[in-house]
Amino acid sequence: MRRYCCNPIITPADVIPSREDFEVIGVFNAGAVEIEGRTLLLLRVAERPIGEGVVAPVFNSDTGLVELMQFSQDADVSDPRIIKDGGQYYITSISHLRRAWSSDGVVFSVEDVPALYPSNKYEEYGIEDPRITYIDEKYYVNYTGVSRYGAGTMLAISDNMLSFGKKGIIFAPDNRDVAIFPEKINGRYYALHRPSPGMLSKPSIWLASSENMLDWGHHECIMMPRSGFWDGEKVGGGAPPIRTADGWLIIYHGVDSEDSYSLGAALLDHDDPSKVIGRSSKPILLPCEPYEVSGFYGKVTFTDGAILRVDGRLDIYYGAADETICLAQADINEILSIL
Amino acid sequence: MRRYCCNPIITPADVIPSREDFEVIGVFNAGAVEIEGRTLLLLRVAERPIGEGVVAPVFNSDTGLVELMQFSQDADVSDPRIIKDGGQYYITSISHLRRAWSSDGVVFSVEDVPALYPSNKYEEYGIEDPRITYIDEKYYVNYTGVSRYGAGTMLAISDNMLSFGKKGIIFAPDNRDVAIFPEKINGRYYALHRPSPGMLSKPSIWLASSENMLDWGHHECIMMPRSGFWDGEKVGGGAPPIRTADGWLIIYHGVDSEDSYSLGAALLDHDDPSKVIGRSSKPILLPCEPYEVSGFYGKVTFTDGAILRVDGRLDIYYGAADETICLAQADINEILSIL
Repeated sequence: MRRYCCNPIITPADVIPSREDFEVIGVFNAGAVEIEGRTLLLLRVAERPIGEGVVAPVFNSDTGLVELMQFSQDADVSDPRIIKDGGQYYITSISHLRRAWSSDGVVFSVEDVPALYPSNKYEEYGIEDPRITYIDEKYYVNYTGVSRYGAGTMLAISDNMLSFGKKGIIFAPDNRDVAIFPEKINGRYYALHRPSPGMLSKPSIWLASSENMLDWGHHECIMMPRSGFWDGEKVGGGAPPIRTADGWLIIYHGVDSEDSYSLGAALLDHDDPSKVIGRSSKPILLPCEPYEVSGFYGKVTFTDGAILRVDGRLDIYYGAADETICLAQADINEILSIL
Repeated sequence: MRRYCCNPIITPADVIPSREDFEVIGVFNAGAVEIEGRTLLLLRVAERPIGEGVVAPVFNSDTGLVELMQFSQDADVSDPRIIKDGGQYYITSISHLRRAWSSDGVVFSVEDVPALYPSNKYEEYGIEDPRITYIDEKYYVNYTGVSRYGAGTMLAISDNMLSFGKKGIIFAPDNRDVAIFPEKINGRYYALHRPSPGMLSKPSIWLASSENMLDWGHHECIMMPRSGFWDGEKVGGGAPPIRTADGWLIIYHGVDSEDSYSLGAALLDHDDPSKVIGRSSKPILLPCEPYEVSGFYGKVTFTDGAILRVDGRLDIYYGAADETICLAQADINEILSIL
């Protein structure tokens, strides 16, 4: 992959907070889709209350408001993303989803207000990491709903990416990194997902299928971490799979033993995506630039959206260090040639 | 609940091993159903190789055989159920499912050979904890498939409980303690399940529904652990829900901070089982008899099957200390009166 010259392309300074008393601390992990020649990113925007103190912003589904939970200074905040207090975990920020538009795929105009905001008890700690799949003239947006119930995958459906119908949980907590295929295969919808494996296994990429997008079954584990490799500890789906002449191209993330998040590629069979035809032995993108190594949570490159342009260029929009949006590009044939 | 006078009713000595070189170390956690006046238990039978050494029996889906994995004496076996070696976990025994029949519900004749045995890669460490639901003239048997991929819930369907069609994973790992409702509600099948919640939550009882028994969605968390109570650390579904005039009676298990497994009861709304009408503040059965406190894994009372007899007596078959099958009985109205 070649990084775009002027990364990052969107930073927290480009995003107006949703409330005057909040600051934007991260804009990253965006879903991506092309609509009538323009590129739409659905950004994850992470905010926190301005000021001192150990505080978790939490959506209250009874009042419909985000309220501030106060913790004592003794609470454990050694991970900048998390507050640990009395055996319970809370999140230091709350995320919503925001549209950003571009005519050239590089310079984006970020909308002033949220497109999707927490609105129920399964979203009380925020909504994160959207992926967009366009299929049968509808946009299916899956995202992570985070709450005291865990981190599960929610679905919203839209005709135009302007208004959305929330459909609840499609993969129960803990399950993230869901990527829906952009076509039915043998009459069923397909998705990658990443259930929480317990002590017997490590976080792995699973395949599921569905008749109706809401009920999912036929689960199969298709890719596990490879011990000692760049993806030795965890793997999870990234951008929605892309149809190529050789099969379904998936851009996924892998985590190594040093907690470094890199991107890799794999190829799945067209007609039976449980068959893995190829898998990159090295990452196609690993955190090494300053904006990837340092940030809110360093050593992270993570994608939720990639667009295959008409000339065969693959634009991968990725979150860097849980703080900014960046762009990496490659000819799709270069990627396929290593698989 | 009143314990049956002569508990346990089935012990490992009553079960012929599936192989001459194996010994039965536990018979527990049985599914239960009444068929033509007889009581059928589908027993979980745990076996291990006879002899010394740290060994895990593992089904090899390539050869179709259970093979013995050897470990060094340095492997961690501090939990009798588990071998920990090089960061990976294995199981010290392998379970299959076995039929046992009774005409009085108390004296059982255990069949000589397995009814269901591991047969694919998701079952390589064994199949465990069956529940039986009879609906629309078919028996739906869900059980836990344990493997390097985690512990997920599998489904098998039978016309007669003599032959079974395995249908694969219905709830991806880690997800156990699935209990399918014995009727459709508003045109959909319903089940309790227990996904692995990650760090934000504790193991809780979720509800899901399905059009076809294979694809599940509409997930909702309906019961969480109650901090400080007998069910303060984990809760999970037990026997399939039982229709009563007051609602769906569920017998569930709860785990306290001392890792003691007790049984409790709750009542769910007939038409909307996501509504919890009542929940027992105290356990209806907690481990205190010697055969419950001591055994392969002590301080465990755990049910997969309960039968409501025509006279209103509820027979709860339960696993004691992960080693034997016991019986506890109560008038169903007594249980409902506390909810």
